[in-house]
Amino acid sequence: MKKIAILTSGGDAPGMNCAIRSVVRYSCHRDLTVIGVSRGYQGLIEKEFRELGPRDVSNVVSVGGTFLKTARSKDFFIKKERDRAHRNLLQENIEGLVVIGGNGSFRAADTFFREFNFPVIGIPGTIDNDVNGTQRTLGFDTALNTAMDAVDKIRDTATSMDRVFLVEVMGRHSGAIAVYSALSGGAEDVILPGEGRDIGEMVKKIKQGRKRGKKSWIIILAEGAGWTQDLASKLKEYVDEVREVVIGHIQRGGKPSAFDRFLGAVMGKTAVDGLLDNKNCHIVGWENDKPIIFSLSEALMEKKEDYSGLLDLIQILT
Amino acid sequence: MKKIAILTSGGDAPGMNCAIRSVVRYSCHRDLTVIGVSRGYQGLIEKEFRELGPRDVSNVVSVGGTFLKTARSKDFFIKKERDRAHRNLLQENIEGLVVIGGNGSFRAADTFFREFNFPVIGIPGTIDNDVNGTQRTLGFDTALNTAMDAVDKIRDTATSMDRVFLVEVMGRHSGAIAVYSALSGGAEDVILPGEGRDIGEMVKKIKQGRKRGKKSWIIILAEGAGWTQDLASKLKEYVDEVREVVIGHIQRGGKPSAFDRFLGAVMGKTAVDGLLDNKNCHIVGWENDKPIIFSLSEALMEKKEDYSGLLDLIQILT
Amino acid sequence: MKKIAILTSGGDAPGMNCAIRSVVRYSCHRDLTVIGVSRGYQGLIEKEFRELGPRDVSNVVSVGGTFLKTARSKDFFIKKERDRAHRNLLQENIEGLVVIGGNGSFRAADTFFREFNFPVIGIPGTIDNDVNGTQRTLGFDTALNTAMDAVDKIRDTATSMDRVFLVEVMGRHSGAIAVYSALSGGAEDVILPGEGRDIGEMVKKIKQGRKRGKKSWIIILAEGAGWTQDLASKLKEYVDEVREVVIGHIQRGGKPSAFDRFLGAVMGKTAVDGLLDNKNCHIVGWENDKPIIFSLSEALMEKKEDYSGLLDLIQILT
Amino acid sequence: MKKIAILTSGGDAPGMNCAIRSVVRYSCHRDLTVIGVSRGYQGLIEKEFRELGPRDVSNVVSVGGTFLKTARSKDFFIKKERDRAHRNLLQENIEGLVVIGGNGSFRAADTFFREFNFPVIGIPGTIDNDVNGTQRTLGFDTALNTAMDAVDKIRDTATSMDRVFLVEVMGRHSGAIAVYSALSGGAEDVILPGEGRDIGEMVKKIKQGRKRGKKSWIIILAEGAGWTQDLASKLKEYVDEVREVVIGHIQRGGKPSAFDRFLGAVMGKTAVDGLLDNKNCHIVGWENDKPIIFSLSEALMEKKEDYSGLLDLIQILT
Repeated sequence: MKKIAILTSGGDAPGMNCAIRSVVRYSCHRDLTVIGVSRGYQGLIEKEFRELGPRDVSNVVSVGGTFLKTARSKDFFIKKERDRAHRNLLQENIEGLVVIGGNGSFRAADTFFREFNFPVIGIPGTIDNDVNGTQRTLGFDTALNTAMDAVDKIRDTATSMDRVFLVEVMGRHSGAIAVYSALSGGAEDVILPGEGRDIGEMVKKIKQGRKRGKKSWIIILAEGAGWTQDLASKLKEYVDEVREVVIGHIQRGGKPSAFDRFLGAVMGKTAVDGLLDNKNCHIVGWENDKPIIFSLSEALMEKKEDYSGLLDLIQILT
Repeated sequence: MKKIAILTSGGDAPGMNCAIRSVVRYSCHRDLTVIGVSRGYQGLIEKEFRELGPRDVSNVVSVGGTFLKTARSKDFFIKKERDRAHRNLLQENIEGLVVIGGNGSFRAADTFFREFNFPVIGIPGTIDNDVNGTQRTLGFDTALNTAMDAVDKIRDTATSMDRVFLVEVMGRHSGAIAVYSALSGGAEDVILPGEGRDIGEMVKKIKQGRKRGKKSWIIILAEGAGWTQDLASKLKEYVDEVREVVIGHIQRGGKPSAFDRFLGAVMGKTAVDGLLDNKNCHIVGWENDKPIIFSLSEALMEKKEDYSGLLDLIQILT
Repeated sequence: MKKIAILTSGGDAPGMNCAIRSVVRYSCHRDLTVIGVSRGYQGLIEKEFRELGPRDVSNVVSVGGTFLKTARSKDFFIKKERDRAHRNLLQENIEGLVVIGGNGSFRAADTFFREFNFPVIGIPGTIDNDVNGTQRTLGFDTALNTAMDAVDKIRDTATSMDRVFLVEVMGRHSGAIAVYSALSGGAEDVILPGEGRDIGEMVKKIKQGRKRGKKSWIIILAEGAGWTQDLASKLKEYVDEVREVVIGHIQRGGKPSAFDRFLGAVMGKTAVDGLLDNKNCHIVGWENDKPIIFSLSEALMEKKEDYSGLLDLIQILT
Repeated sequence: MKKIAILTSGGDAPGMNCAIRSVVRYSCHRDLTVIGVSRGYQGLIEKEFRELGPRDVSNVVSVGGTFLKTARSKDFFIKKERDRAHRNLLQENIEGLVVIGGNGSFRAADTFFREFNFPVIGIPGTIDNDVNGTQRTLGFDTALNTAMDAVDKIRDTATSMDRVFLVEVMGRHSGAIAVYSALSGGAEDVILPGEGRDIGEMVKKIKQGRKRGKKSWIIILAEGAGWTQDLASKLKEYVDEVREVVIGHIQRGGKPSAFDRFLGAVMGKTAVDGLLDNKNCHIVGWENDKPIIFSLSEALMEKKEDYSGLLDLIQILT
């Protein structure tokens, strides 16, 4: 293998630039040429290619987002367009592809491998921490810290004004940011995707809390619970001073945390090692404080999240 | 004067604790006893009083919100309740009142002075920077930095995904946070309260920008423009990849900035000096890098904001 | 077991308050009374005890340091003083002790257990990440992010002025903060405790870097390398524009990161479970994304740090 | 005037990039071509010129340092080298020069104007806030917030361990960062350049403080006091638990604060207006919340700092 390509796909996540830098510089060390593909699979189709040398990734470790840009390509669902992407790679003598992204990006990578037997290796880059087989994804730690910071700030007003706040955090179908930000932010309650709740019970707990001196109350809602406005208006019927906040896109940006930069550096190197070691349809993961490589098919299985222990702990620590 | 009271009223703002600390410790230096009133005017009515000594305000400078708690008291609009508040003050031999808050709080203070001839002095504490007669209010600088930080983070995604973002910042009827966060965040456009806009013009500018290489576009909307969802849905008809973010309550909390802590310290001292100097219906302000004292009646006049120069600059610097 | 005590000892670390909160509130859930001991072992000797209830640990998760205060007690090395400490515990019917600290604190705890057969359980709280048997200690992640942040800031000047910076980070005999901050901060070199270096080689690398366009150069030194001033003055003989920075105590303070808060919450609970489960001379650790409990004697063995892989990666990614 | 040049000189300061961006884009609006000069006056001598268009200053507002690079040029003290610099400017038909820097940079600019009658306009960019005639310099607000942040973090350890900390902040001969960070950080004492102190008095105050419950004590020293190590060792003779921290270069870097970005934007525009308005040996300043233009000769006079009022306030608020 002499030449590989790299792209970022799906939602951007802090740390992606660190992983690109690691792939580029480590590849240089292993005598590989690296081609950067702009705007994810769309750039693969439209052949937005440029060679990336060590100096092209200077000073990117502290920058959020992805300097290669990313996109959600609809065209890549079309076989003819994937053919075109494949031709583009062959024309440039590219022999392997590093894909940094989330589950959707990996399904596309898997399809691409199966259709063309073209070597692909994934790096899980998503703030949602919802890729099966890895304990951490790139960007989760940063997003979690941003969400927690927001909870800290909201608590200032909640405490000053004896308010109840509903705070919606990101995570699509995953409850990871919600659970961890609730625990680290000291929230009083958390509602995960798919969870039903008895409003009466919630109101009772808030009122009991107020009686025993806990006048402010922060409830974290996972985006995937899909319920923030509705819950807010219901609570407002029974409790005074309820406010809702949707933290939103700020969770996707910002300087990567130390862990995400470290993860990006290690995963980038591991991905290149994997390609050179004929891991042709695999993904890099993080387990027991070390990088691992496992099959894309395992990554594509649904991740079973079991947060029951942490949810109990949140209730107990309130 | 031997004894004064202090309360925080209306929305909390970063720096209020610094002002309380300054009032308490400087009063001690001037041989005044300070009574802290909880929950604003409501606590005045319900006589939630406690003496505050120098050690009671230890380690509060770095804490957002107000440890005295604040509220928007409806009862204080009722004459009978104000009578009660006045009696409470007289019973405790309190001879002056420091009110930290915004315009609503000052209208109440003004009424209270006129009814009972009870000495009041205001400290403008609101993130909105909308109090007439002072160049800065306590909390504005911190809120502005929080809003700008959010814009920085959103830009990571805007740039990575070539998106248009509408970002709503706080400020009620004021455009201060909007204008300053747009300029410091490098936003492409800003919409102030009361401003009409030609959607066609906006779309044209965005499309022209895309042509000359400016693929991402951030528009700041002042809360008081009241238009975020509506504008978002209209823009989505003509432009791809539009997203909206309401930054919300995180702008009200967090550690005060250096300037807000400095302002709190200086304004607190100035307020005590004012009371001792028989400024009986006044407010502290900030002008030309120095504290000033002026009449509450001037503060209660509508603030004329003229941001035309800054708005032009934002357009030119895009 | 009906009553336990908790103390923090040695250097303070961000997240200690989260662990105390977790111990207090989880103990309440398990019907245990918790006595907070001030100023570590010194407070045990001087009987600075107070009961801690759930409301006593409100709003501490976001605060660095330890509200119980900590100290390095010389008296506790004296048998007679330890006898006194033991008597104090018995007098109050305390049946178990949670010690949050580092290696020195655990040696003291081990001695205490062996002398009096008094149940002790440790929670590793130190920014140095140098406790054997656990992959993470409380405070390391926060300190690492602070160190990395400092490196980011220094890089602004290094880049603007084409300078060489020597940056000393904390960690006593451990190289953990040094290695991880170098990797995440994108530093060009790192020097660990006990490492010799050929100055000529270092100068050559810096000069070669300058030739190929890398004009600024950041070298991280572990505190334990003990060499910062000396290296700085030597480098200055051969290279222009060398500056040194000792980041110092800011690494010990600040709001705990999300991970450290999470770790504190989980470790606090685990410690209480351990005491109730007759783990009488043990310590809580973190392994493979889960809490573990292991013997204090294992924790007291020297930690073997092998950073060779990461050191190679830092060189390659430069 | 059709073409101007811009350079940054002396120590870098956060916000310089914002000022460059403003000069470039506003010049474009006024139909001026802008030439960026690298590495300050040294680049003027060595003709390191490149044209800067609006897209060359994209995404720089949030970046500390100066992308034009800066230097302290010794060559520029030599007449022959200044001749060369002047020739370079004439060769490129450059008709005016914007200099962003501090006092040293402005002395050089003044010399250059007087020798060649070449129009120069200054923008005060230095964290020291020590340029005469302007209430604020670019970078001061950011550096102050960084210093205050460090004080906040150090307080966590000071409070946890009942320690006395001496914290040295930057500022050369100016006491600005020292005074403002002491007030905003809630420090117990501050020592300015040129100030003598009675050690016995300091020790007495610390010991009295400890008696009345103030166990930790933070003393800010201005860099220009030149006394940190010496004072630390003297205090250690009389008081336990004294530590010193030199905050150092981190104060020079980092994302500019909102105010510094705003100031950069406004000052950049004002500088261009000034050049076009035949202000040929002037400097931009900030007074009473507005930009001003005044003569370089006034800027070069010594700045009289009178911090007596603030110093008293710091003592009173302790």
